Amino acid sequence: MSNKLFPETFLWSGVSSGIKRSGRPDLGLAYSSYPSTVSGVFTSNAFPAAPVLNANDRLEGDQKFRGLVVNSGVANAATGKQGLEANQKMINCASKGLGLEPDEVLSASTGVIGEPLPLETINQGIPEAVDHLQEQPDSFSRAILTTDKTEKRCSKTILDGEATLLGIAKGSGMIRPGMATMLAFLFLDYPVEQSCLDRALTHACEKSFNRITVDGDMSTNDTVLAWAAELPDRAPVRSGTGEAEQLQQTLDSVCYELAEAIVKDGEGAEKTIRIDVKGAPSDRVARRVADSVAGSSLVKTAFHGEDPNWGRIYSSIGATTENLDSERLTIEINGHAVYKEEPVQPVQEQLDQSMKASDQVVTIDLGLGDSTDFALTCDLSAEYVKINSEYHT
Amino acid sequence: MSNKLFPETFLWSGVSSGIKRSGRPDLGLAYSSYPSTVSGVFTSNAFPAAPVLNANDRLEGDQKFRGLVVNSGVANAATGKQGLEANQKMINCASKGLGLEPDEVLSASTGVIGEPLPLETINQGIPEAVDHLQEQPDSFSRAILTTDKTEKRCSKTILDGEATLLGIAKGSGMIRPGMATMLAFLFLDYPVEQSCLDRALTHACEKSFNRITVDGDMSTNDTVLAWAAELPDRAPVRSGTGEAEQLQQTLDSVCYELAEAIVKDGEGAEKTIRIDVKGAPSDRVARRVADSVAGSSLVKTAFHGEDPNWGRIYSSIGATTENLDSERLTIEINGHAVYKEEPVQPVQEQLDQSMKASDQVVTIDLGLGDSTDFALTCDLSAEYVKINSEYHT
Repeated sequence: MSNKLFPETFLWSGVSSGIKRSGRPDLGLAYSSYPSTVSGVFTSNAFPAAPVLNANDRLEGDQKFRGLVVNSGVANAATGKQGLEANQKMINCASKGLGLEPDEVLSASTGVIGEPLPLETINQGIPEAVDHLQEQPDSFSRAILTTDKTEKRCSKTILDGEATLLGIAKGSGMIRPGMATMLAFLFLDYPVEQSCLDRALTHACEKSFNRITVDGDMSTNDTVLAWAAELPDRAPVRSGTGEAEQLQQTLDSVCYELAEAIVKDGEGAEKTIRIDVKGAPSDRVARRVADSVAGSSLVKTAFHGEDPNWGRIYSSIGATTENLDSERLTIEINGHAVYKEEPVQPVQEQLDQSMKASDQVVTIDLGLGDSTDFALTCDLSAEYVKINSEYHT
Repeated sequence: MSNKLFPETFLWSGVSSGIKRSGRPDLGLAYSSYPSTVSGVFTSNAFPAAPVLNANDRLEGDQKFRGLVVNSGVANAATGKQGLEANQKMINCASKGLGLEPDEVLSASTGVIGEPLPLETINQGIPEAVDHLQEQPDSFSRAILTTDKTEKRCSKTILDGEATLLGIAKGSGMIRPGMATMLAFLFLDYPVEQSCLDRALTHACEKSFNRITVDGDMSTNDTVLAWAAELPDRAPVRSGTGEAEQLQQTLDSVCYELAEAIVKDGEGAEKTIRIDVKGAPSDRVARRVADSVAGSSLVKTAFHGEDPNWGRIYSSIGATTENLDSERLTIEINGHAVYKEEPVQPVQEQLDQSMKASDQVVTIDLGLGDSTDFALTCDLSAEYVKINSEYHT
C-alpha cells in the first residue's frame, strides 16, 4: 500500500433507485473487504431518526462491520416503530446483496422528515448498486446528497503512506423541508483499536462538525461514522502511540476540511465566516461567544451585504449574558481592528475591500483568560429564504 | 378621573432634532406632573448601553422620577465612559428644560451601536420638545421609532375607571445595523408601592416582552420602564390586594398587546406565529421547546412559504436535546393535528387554507406533564435579509 488516493480495502457505489422524483442518485453502498472497526458520532436531537437509533445501539459493543447502506430523499425520521422496521429491512436487503450478515451492515438516511421509507424502491435498487461497486467513491458521494450543490470528499495518506484516510460528507446548510442532515463517513485501510478510534473521532468532530452552523437547526439524522479495516497483517493503532497521534492529526484535518466544505455549500451561502475567540475566561465561555456570533442572523446578513458592521458582532457577544468586560474586548474583522477597549477607526477602504472576499474572519479577544474556540458559519442570503420557503412538501 | 384614553398626570412630546439624517422625529420627552414610582426591566446583554447602565443603577433605591428623555437614531452603546458622560449630559439638559433636578430624570436610547451620542443636536432639540409637551402621546410614540413601520400604543382603564394605564413601545424585529432595541414605557396616573410595581412589571414582562423573538438577537438597549404617579390624594396600590390583582391583569394585557405589536411589525414579517407548548415535564422544558421552535429559521421560512411543514417543527422540538418522547407528542397547526404519537394526515385542503391567515398557531403537547409556556414570533422573509444586508453604516 502506498500513496493511493482512496483506501484500497473498500468499494463504493451509488445509483438512482427512484426515491427522488428528480431521478438523481439516491442510494449508496460501501463495502469493506475486511471486517472494520467502526466509531460513530450522532445527533443529540431528542427525536433521532430510525437509522440513528439503530446504529447508535449497535456501536455499543465490539462488533465489526463490513457494509453500509445510505439512502437520500427520505430521512426515515418521525416514523416510529414502522420506521425502525423499515430500516432493518433495508439493512437486510443490503446485507443479502453484499453477501454479508445483517449484523455486519450499518445504515444512514437523509431527506424529508415524516415520510415512510419507500422500501420497495430501495430493495429494487440494491442489486444494481451491488453490481456497480468500484474502487472510486464518486458515485457513492453523489448518491448521499440532497440540496447540496457540490460533492464533499477529502483524502489524505497517513502512517508514512502506509494507509489512506478518505472522508465523504453531505450537508447543505441543514435542512430543507426536512431535507435534513449532515452525514459524514470516514474510511481508513488500516486497523485501529476500538477505544482509540472512538476517542479520535470524538476529538475530530468537536473541532469540526460540532463547530459549524448554517441556520442553527439541528437535524434528526446527523451521523458521522469512521471505519478502520482490520487488515490481518497489520497491528492496530493503539492510543498513546505516535501512530495514534498521526491518526488524530489526519482525522482532525480531514473532518475540518469536510466541515468547511459543508458551510461553503450552505443553502444560499456566498461567504464562509470563521469566528475565532481567544482570551476567554473558560472553554465554555469561548464556545458560547463563538456560537452566539456565528448564530446571529444580523451578523450573517451584514456579511452578506459586505458591511463591516461591528456593532452587531459586539451586541451578539454581549447576548451570551456572560460576565464580560467591554473595556478588555478587542474585535477584528479580517485582521482590521474595529474595537479595542472602545471603538477604533480602521482604514475604512482596506476593511471595505476585505469584505468582498469569500472567506471572512472575525477575531474576538475577550481579554479575560487563555481559553480559545472557533465556529464556522456562512452568510445569510435572500436565497436561503427562497430555498426554504418556496419548496412545498 | 374617569375613562380617559390617556393617563392625565403625564405630558409627552416628540420632535425632529436632527439625529436622524432622514429628518424623522428622533427626540421624545415625557413629563410627570407628580413624582412617580418607576420600575424597570432591562436587557441581560453583557454589554448594556450607557442609558441602561444609568437607569438600572438609579432604580435601585426608592427615588421618585418626573422626567424621561428618549432619543432614537443613536444607541449610545459600545461608547465606554464617554457614553456614560454623554448620557448624563443629555439628562442634565432635559432636566433643565423641564425645570427638574437631574436625579428626577431618566433616559433611554435606541439606534446605531458604536456611534457617539450627538449631544449638541440633542441639546438644541430639547427646548422645542419642552415647548411641545401635550396631553396626547402621539408625537412621543413616533419619536422613539427606528425601523418600525407602525406606532405601538395600548391603553386601558383600571380600578373602575379611576385610572388609565398607557403603554408605548418600539421595536421592529430587533436590530438593524445596530438600529437596535425594544423600548417600552408604561404610564399610570395612580400611585403604586415600589415593591408592588416591581413585582407586577417583572411578571408582565415574563409573559410578554420576554416571550417574543424576531431574529433571536438580543439588543444592548432593551428597556421597559413602568411609571406610577404619586397622586397625593390616593392611597398607593399594595401587593396582595384586589387592586394589585387588577393592576397585574391590566399590565399583563397591555404588555402582551405591545409585544404582539412588536412581532407583527418584525422586519420583513408578514405573519405572526404563536407557539403554544403544553404537557411539558417542567416550566424550563416548556420554555425551551417554545423558544426552540420560535427561533428556528426553518420553521419561520416554512410559515413564510405557507407550507405546513411539520417535520421542521418536530425536528426543532427535538433540537432542545431534552428528554422527550416522540410517542407521546402531539403537534397541531392552526388546530389541525399533523402528528399524534405518529404522523397523521390532516384534511390537507383545510390545513393549506389556514396557512394563508396572518395569525398562525402551533400547538405542541409533549404529553409528559402539566407545564405550559408560549412564544410569539414572525415568519422569516427575503425582505428581512434585504433590510439587514442592504443597509450600510
